[in-house]
Amino acid sequence: MELDYSKIRAFAFDVDGVMTDGGLLCDLNGELYRTFNAKDCFSVRMARLNGYPVAVITGGRSKSILARFRTCGVDEGDVYLNSRNKIKDLDIFCGKHSLSADEVMYFGDDIPDVCALKACGIGICPSDACTEAKEAADMVSSFPGGNGCVRDGIETTLRCQGKWIFDVDQYEKRF
Amino acid sequence: MELDYSKIRAFAFDVDGVMTDGGLLCDLNGELYRTFNAKDCFSVRMARLNGYPVAVITGGRSKSILARFRTCGVDEGDVYLNSRNKIKDLDIFCGKHSLSADEVMYFGDDIPDVCALKACGIGICPSDACTEAKEAADMVSSFPGGNGCVRDGIETTLRCQGKWIFDVDQYEKRF
Amino acid sequence: MELDYSKIRAFAFDVDGVMTDGGLLCDLNGELYRTFNAKDCFSVRMARLNGYPVAVITGGRSKSILARFRTCGVDEGDVYLNSRNKIKDLDIFCGKHSLSADEVMYFGDDIPDVCALKACGIGICPSDACTEAKEAADMVSSFPGGNGCVRDGIETTLRCQGKWIFDVDQYEKRF
Amino acid sequence: MELDYSKIRAFAFDVDGVMTDGGLLCDLNGELYRTFNAKDCFSVRMARLNGYPVAVITGGRSKSILARFRTCGVDEGDVYLNSRNKIKDLDIFCGKHSLSADEVMYFGDDIPDVCALKACGIGICPSDACTEAKEAADMVSSFPGGNGCVRDGIETTLRCQGKWIFDVDQYEKRF
Repeated sequence: MELDYSKIRAFAFDVDGVMTDGGLLCDLNGELYRTFNAKDCFSVRMARLNGYPVAVITGGRSKSILARFRTCGVDEGDVYLNSRNKIKDLDIFCGKHSLSADEVMYFGDDIPDVCALKACGIGICPSDACTEAKEAADMVSSFPGGNGCVRDGIETTLRCQGKWIFDVDQYEKRF
Repeated sequence: MELDYSKIRAFAFDVDGVMTDGGLLCDLNGELYRTFNAKDCFSVRMARLNGYPVAVITGGRSKSILARFRTCGVDEGDVYLNSRNKIKDLDIFCGKHSLSADEVMYFGDDIPDVCALKACGIGICPSDACTEAKEAADMVSSFPGGNGCVRDGIETTLRCQGKWIFDVDQYEKRF
Repeated sequence: MELDYSKIRAFAFDVDGVMTDGGLLCDLNGELYRTFNAKDCFSVRMARLNGYPVAVITGGRSKSILARFRTCGVDEGDVYLNSRNKIKDLDIFCGKHSLSADEVMYFGDDIPDVCALKACGIGICPSDACTEAKEAADMVSSFPGGNGCVRDGIETTLRCQGKWIFDVDQYEKRF
Repeated sequence: MELDYSKIRAFAFDVDGVMTDGGLLCDLNGELYRTFNAKDCFSVRMARLNGYPVAVITGGRSKSILARFRTCGVDEGDVYLNSRNKIKDLDIFCGKHSLSADEVMYFGDDIPDVCALKACGIGICPSDACTEAKEAADMVSSFPGGNGCVRDGIETTLRCQGKWIFDVDQYEKRF
């Protein structure tokens, strides 16, 4: 089945195993630190710069997640920490931005993401997602979590919509 | 030999090289920090949520290990830090929860795990375990330490016992 | 096309995805920590020790980048943090050291590097660079970012110019 | 050429790229943090427990290196930080323990290690060592730095000398 990237108007994703390789560095108090990927983050920034709403929906609670995505231009109100039911948070995000779920591209890798992967217009999972996520997704990226999966989906969408354009001879960072 | 997953009533595992890739990040005072994997931790949480006792038996001493597994629902009394003899700690765990060793699935990757791998009902080692652990184990997982080995064993067991079930259309995190 | 390493008189590179694998470890305040590679850093030190000007041109803002390259012998004035337009910073670097862009080897991996990859005498990108960087580069290294790409380019250049010479029987670190 | 493991009476190794994968995590002040490997460290501990002198010879300066190897049983006086000439430090180590260089197994991966790799009885480099180190070594391990290279050499030596023996049915950690 050919995927219809032209309908996508927003992006939403899980964090652990999607924007990271699933690694959780743990300090003495149990606080968790994550390693994000520069190329993935670049694509999120480009999506925001082009006006696409972006949601981060995660069971994680660390304010480091807020801090990281703020730098990528994601509105703090669109970062759903400590999410217990991703489909509910996705509904809130859609309502807020007048989106139908069919206009959202969702990235997820594990059981808590399955409902959102099914509900959204295009569901993408990394190459190292769990079985259930792979079955629920419309596409399995050839890139693993934390290493190109989100870049893959966003870049393909923006390219298809004529938005992945850079004056590379005079490229200036605007964010 | 076909493994009998139906007899398993509890899980026990080593930390370094099993719940991690063996990496020990060292600070100026020699304090060690470990990187855990979100998908592996998810399976531990699911085991606890379904009432399986879970033991963590490690030579490590960091209270970050306590903190990490508390979040996964593991009882603090079932985390054996600074273990010098894993078979003894396994005995204590079994006594406390009225388990025979044959009802326990044990995950280990190195020499200190060999006795526990042999003693337990099912011994599993990651794909990158040492020679002796591989020989002692009933199964060598196709996943390496810190990247799917524990998830593999727990998911297979829960699935076989009809406990790996999620209402994915309305998935709500209960922990 | 055979590359002409003999014309190179200076090196310039991006940080994320070039001197690192793109990983950004994020703390609670959003401060980012990077992991550098000892072999890559060794080659930067050798370039400096042999008198080649070296520029670091990055969108990153962390003073940890300054600290890391100071140890490699890079002049603080040649580290361009928070760069919004790499070609402009490259111009400043060239002017300061009386270099033409054709005498500079540039390493980059993503969109913001494309103009510099094209402008410099030899543009090199890591094996895991984005499509646009690969197209703009004169050579795609067989090494990925953060794991040998910079070493590859610097070592090849110094070797070609007869500067990759060590009295290995009595090697003494001079930096 | 068959290597003669029976003559080895001590071990000496570099840190970056040997006991680690070469990764240097850098904090805001330029302080460097390294990630060690549990299985490699286990073999160092076993060497010490069996009475083999062990030297750590590194250009690194962090006291985290001291702290890490103290836990492995390495004498603080045998950790050579900030080494500018490894062959000189190796000489001091040999003199102190009445060893000839021919009785030492040395592990190194880069230019500063070449002289020591040549001077020692058996020189081993990780699979991802630089060209010069590979040429100088008596053996290229099939394991990369920070992931089994040191374990490989120590385990093979102790096994050959009848010292890699564990009462695995009653294994008790003695360190």
